[in-house]
Amino acid sequence: MAEYQAPLKDMQFLLYDVFKAENQWAAMSDLPELGRDLADAILQEGAKLAEQVFFPLNATGDEQGCRLEAGKVITPDGFKAAYQHLVEGGWLGLSGDPAFEGQGMPKMLVALFEEMMFASNSSLTLYVTLSLGAGLALSSHGSEEQKRVYLEKLYQGSWSGTMCLTEPHSGTDLGILRTKAASNGDGSYAITGSKIFITSGDHDLTENVMHLVLAKLPDAPEGTRGISMFLVPKFLVDSEGQLGDRNSVSVGSLEHKMGIKGSATCVMNFDGAKGWLVGEPHQGLAAMFTMMNYERLTTGIQGVGSADMAYQHALAYAKERLQGRSPRGAQYPEQPADPIIVHPDVRRMLLTIKAYTEGSRAFVVYTGLQLDLAAHAKDDAQRQRAEQLAALLTPVAKAYLSDRGFDSCVMAQQVLGGHGYVKEWGVEQLVRDARIAQIYEGTNGVQAMDLVGRKIYKTRGALLRPLLDDIRRLLAKVKSSLVLQSMAETLDQASLMLEETTEWLVDQADRNPNILGASAVEYLELVGLVSFAYLWLNMAKTAIEENERDGQEFYLSKLATAQFFYEKLLPKALSLGQSIQAGSQSTMQLSVEQF
Amino acid sequence: MAEYQAPLKDMQFLLYDVFKAENQWAAMSDLPELGRDLADAILQEGAKLAEQVFFPLNATGDEQGCRLEAGKVITPDGFKAAYQHLVEGGWLGLSGDPAFEGQGMPKMLVALFEEMMFASNSSLTLYVTLSLGAGLALSSHGSEEQKRVYLEKLYQGSWSGTMCLTEPHSGTDLGILRTKAASNGDGSYAITGSKIFITSGDHDLTENVMHLVLAKLPDAPEGTRGISMFLVPKFLVDSEGQLGDRNSVSVGSLEHKMGIKGSATCVMNFDGAKGWLVGEPHQGLAAMFTMMNYERLTTGIQGVGSADMAYQHALAYAKERLQGRSPRGAQYPEQPADPIIVHPDVRRMLLTIKAYTEGSRAFVVYTGLQLDLAAHAKDDAQRQRAEQLAALLTPVAKAYLSDRGFDSCVMAQQVLGGHGYVKEWGVEQLVRDARIAQIYEGTNGVQAMDLVGRKIYKTRGALLRPLLDDIRRLLAKVKSSLVLQSMAETLDQASLMLEETTEWLVDQADRNPNILGASAVEYLELVGLVSFAYLWLNMAKTAIEENERDGQEFYLSKLATAQFFYEKLLPKALSLGQSIQAGSQSTMQLSVEQF
Repeated sequence: MAEYQAPLKDMQFLLYDVFKAENQWAAMSDLPELGRDLADAILQEGAKLAEQVFFPLNATGDEQGCRLEAGKVITPDGFKAAYQHLVEGGWLGLSGDPAFEGQGMPKMLVALFEEMMFASNSSLTLYVTLSLGAGLALSSHGSEEQKRVYLEKLYQGSWSGTMCLTEPHSGTDLGILRTKAASNGDGSYAITGSKIFITSGDHDLTENVMHLVLAKLPDAPEGTRGISMFLVPKFLVDSEGQLGDRNSVSVGSLEHKMGIKGSATCVMNFDGAKGWLVGEPHQGLAAMFTMMNYERLTTGIQGVGSADMAYQHALAYAKERLQGRSPRGAQYPEQPADPIIVHPDVRRMLLTIKAYTEGSRAFVVYTGLQLDLAAHAKDDAQRQRAEQLAALLTPVAKAYLSDRGFDSCVMAQQVLGGHGYVKEWGVEQLVRDARIAQIYEGTNGVQAMDLVGRKIYKTRGALLRPLLDDIRRLLAKVKSSLVLQSMAETLDQASLMLEETTEWLVDQADRNPNILGASAVEYLELVGLVSFAYLWLNMAKTAIEENERDGQEFYLSKLATAQFFYEKLLPKALSLGQSIQAGSQSTMQLSVEQF
Repeated sequence: MAEYQAPLKDMQFLLYDVFKAENQWAAMSDLPELGRDLADAILQEGAKLAEQVFFPLNATGDEQGCRLEAGKVITPDGFKAAYQHLVEGGWLGLSGDPAFEGQGMPKMLVALFEEMMFASNSSLTLYVTLSLGAGLALSSHGSEEQKRVYLEKLYQGSWSGTMCLTEPHSGTDLGILRTKAASNGDGSYAITGSKIFITSGDHDLTENVMHLVLAKLPDAPEGTRGISMFLVPKFLVDSEGQLGDRNSVSVGSLEHKMGIKGSATCVMNFDGAKGWLVGEPHQGLAAMFTMMNYERLTTGIQGVGSADMAYQHALAYAKERLQGRSPRGAQYPEQPADPIIVHPDVRRMLLTIKAYTEGSRAFVVYTGLQLDLAAHAKDDAQRQRAEQLAALLTPVAKAYLSDRGFDSCVMAQQVLGGHGYVKEWGVEQLVRDARIAQIYEGTNGVQAMDLVGRKIYKTRGALLRPLLDDIRRLLAKVKSSLVLQSMAETLDQASLMLEETTEWLVDQADRNPNILGASAVEYLELVGLVSFAYLWLNMAKTAIEENERDGQEFYLSKLATAQFFYEKLLPKALSLGQSIQAGSQSTMQLSVEQF
C-alpha cells in the first residue's frame, strides 16, 4: 500500500508554467494579494494535511463507516480530530467571501487543495465540500442578515452545510418534489417533507448544520419554476449566531452504500421545521444551481484525486512486484523475475491512468481559471467569455473527469491483479468510493444532457466557440515546432471533427427531438477528449520550453505522456464521431415490451 | 429489486435456431442420447434451481460472507441446503465423464446452466465450477485408479475440488513457485508450501476437498517446465473412497474481498501434506491448463450471468421509475412523470447491456459448440478445426465477456442512479462480484497476451482462419438479404480490418518484441467486437427466418438490437485499429523513473 504523496510538482507546473497564474492573479481585480510564495505555502500546508491527517483515516473510515445512535450520526474514529485540524488551519474559509472573513483565494488554487483532500480521504472531504458549496450559494443569494449570521460560522468550520434536493420519488426530476413550505407569519416558514441521499445530513463534526432545502410554497407554479430554497438550521440561531432550540429536522436513517462509507448519507425528515427563504420565491432552483455548479466541478475533482491515489498505489506495486521477464529478456537478471513495470501491458495501464489524471488536473485548473476570470477579470468581455467557457466546461468536468477517475481506479486495480481485489492494498476501496462521483450531483447522463441541450443546442453551438478559439490560438503558437507538429495536426483534425459533429447535431435536433439524448453521453466524451488533447498539447509545449530552461525528467515525462495520449487514447474520438452520426433510430425503435 | 428470471427463450433461440443444436448433437459420436425434450427439461429445471434456490441467497451471502472458525470455513446461511439441492438433482455430474457415472452432456448446453447459476448467485456457483474443472483435469490426466476413486464423488457432489496455483510471490509467473514435493517412497509425495487466493479452499458443503496443487519435484528443471501437479485430499481416502485421516493441509486465513463474499477465498498451507502425482512429472502446467481453460470459459460465463441479472434489475427500474418527460412530450400524461425508459440515454444504456449480454451468450454457445465438436465430431478435420477455434476463442471468452459483464453491471448501476449505489437494489453487489472475473484465472491482460502471443503470433495468424471462414460463409448466406445488407457490408469491412491488423501485428512482432504486449488488450477487444458482429448478424439472420415462420416480438427485438450493436457499438473497432497501429513506442519510451 502506497502512502499518499501530493503531486505538488505537477500542480506548480500547471499553475505557474502552463496557466501563468502569477500574471493572471496580478491582472485580476478584487483578488486578495497573492503571489507564488503564498500559493506555494497553501499547497504545501494542504499537502501535509492530506498526507498526514486525512490519508491515515481513509481505510479505517471505510471499515467503520458512520452509525446512527439515538438520532445522532457518529462519524468514524479520528474524523472529528482531523476536522479540527481543518478548523484550526482556517481551511474552510480558503475560498470564502472576504467581506465575511473568508480568504477569497482563487478557484484554480483552491481546486488543487480539494484534489489533495479527495485523493487522501474522499469521505472526510465531503463534510468540507458540502459546507463550501452551501456557503457559496448563501453568499450569492442570501440576505445580508443571513450572510452575516451564517457565513462566518461556515468559514470557521463551526457549522456545516448540506444541499437537500432529492426525495424518494424525485431525483433528476425536481419539478415533482413534494416538500412543502408554509408561512409562519413571522418571516419564517414551516418546512415539511422527506429528503433522501443527503450527504453530511447529520454528523458529530460541527455544532450546527445549515440545510439548504428545496421546497414548494403554497402558491407555487407547477414544475421547476415553483421551487424555492430555504435555509433550515439543525439548531435555531439568534441574530448573533447563538445556538437556540433544536429545530424539527431529524435523521430518518443512514444509507448502506457501496463506498464513501465514512460519509454520512442521510434520510432527513423535516417536520414543520423552521426555515427562511433564501433569495426570491420560486427562484430556488436557480439559486441552488450556484451550489450545484460548484459541487459538479468538485465531483470532477474527486475523480482526479481518486485516480491519482490509485495511480500511486499501482505504480508502487508495479515497481515492487516481480513477475515474469521483459519481452526483450531479463532486465534485472540478478532478481528471480523483473518488476512488472517492464511489461508493455502494465505500462499501457499506468500510462493511461497518468495521461487521464494529469489531463484531468489540467482540465480542473483550466476550468478554475475561467471561474476566477468570470469573477475577477477587469474587462467585461473577458468576464463574459470566461463565464461561457465555465458553463461549457462544468458538465464536462463533472462527468468526463469522474468517468476517467473511476476507470483509472479500476485500471489500477487491474495492475495489482488479485491483490487489487482484496482490501489490504486499498485500491478496491478507491474503486468503490470513486463510483459515486459518476452518480451524484446529477448523473453523468444528466450532465451530458445539460451539455448538449442547454449549453450546445440552445446556443446553436456558440458556447463551444471560446474553447475552439483557445485551440486555434494554441495551434498558431506551436506551428513552427517540429516536435509538436504531429500532435498539432491531430488536434486540428479532432477539433474540426468536433465542430462538424456539433453542427450536425444542432441541425438534426431541429427535426429530431431524440437525437440530443441519444448522442449526449458520446458527445460529452468527445468534448472531453478534444479538450484533453488541447491541454496535453499545451502541457507538451510548456514542458519543452521549461526543459530548455532547466532540463528535468519531469518535463520529458510530460512530453512522452502527451505522445501516449495522442497515439493511444485520442483515437477513440473517431469511433465517437461515427457512433454519434449513426443517429437515434436504433436507440429508439424498440417498444418498451421489446426490451 | 428484480427477481432473477432465466432467459430461457433466448437460450433456446441460440441452441436450436441459431446453432442448430439438434442436428449438431445427432451428428456427434460418443454423445449420450440427447434431443430437444431432454435439453429443454435440463434448462427448465436449471432455471428453477437458479430462480428459487440460488437467487434468494445472493444478497444474504454477500451480507454474511464466509467465516473461519477453529480452522474450518463456515459458508453463509442456506448455502449448504442449496448445495444439497444440486447434489440431489445430480447437477454436479451433468458434464461428467459417462465412464464414471457422469452424464456427459455437451458444453453448449451445460454452459447455459452455468450462466443461470452465476446470474443468480456467483459466490455459491464457484463451489460448483471449481469442482467441475478439477474433475475435468482429473478425467483428462489422472490415472485409472485416481479417476475411479475421485470422479464419482466429484460428480455426486459429496467431494469438491480446487486449483492451487498462486503463491504470495508467484501469480502470473508460475515458473517461480516454491511449493515442494518430496517422494515418500510409497508412491505418495509430501507437499510443502503456501498457496493463496484458493477459491473454495475449505468450506462446509462437502465431506472432502480434493486439491489439485502445483509443486516442484526435487529434480525439477527451472521455470514452468519443472512444475508437477498433485492431488492432495483434505481427508485421506482409501482405494474404495472411504475417508481416513485428516491430511496436513489447513486454512491459513480468509481473504477480505471487494465482492464474491460468500465464496471462501483461502490461504492454504500444505505442511508435508500427502499428495499423489497426476499425470507425468514436470508436466503439471499442461495438465492444469485443462482445468484453466475450462475455468476461463466459465469466468466469461460469469460475466454473462452478472450482466443479465444487472440488465433485469435496470430494466425493472427503468419501467417503474417515473422521472421527467420524453423529449417528444409526455408519453404517460396521466402519471406525474414518464417512466425513465422513454429517455434516449436510458435506452442507450439498456440496449448497450442487452447487445453485449446477448452477444456474449451467443459467444459462449459458439465456443461451447467448438468444444463439443472437438470432443465428438466424427471427422478428424472437423475436430481439429473446432479445437483451433476453441483455442482462439477461450481467452477472448474469458476477457472480453468478463469485461462486458463488468461494464454492463456498472452501466445498470448508472440506470438506477443513487439507488444503484445503495445496497437495497442489489446492483452494487453485482458490480463488486463481477469485478473479480476480470482478474482471476489469469488477468484479462494475461488472456490478451495468450491471444496475441501463443494463439496469433506463434501460428502467424493461422488460428484466426476458422473464425474468418465462418464470417465469410455467413456473409455469402446473407448476400441477397436487403434488410441485412448494411450490416453485412460493415462486417465485411470489420473482418478485413481485423485481418490486416493481424498481419501488421505479426509482421511487426518479428522485429519489435514489445509490440505484442503493447497491443494485446486492444487486439483482444477488436477480436471480441468482430466476433460479436459475426454473431449478431447470424442472430439477425436467424431472427428474420424465424419471424417469417412465427412472428414474435422476440425476433423483432433481436433484429433491432443487432442494428443498435452495429451502429452504436461496433464503431469502436475503428479506434482500436488506429491505436494498435500506433505501435509501442509511446508505451515504452518512459524510463521507470519518469512514471
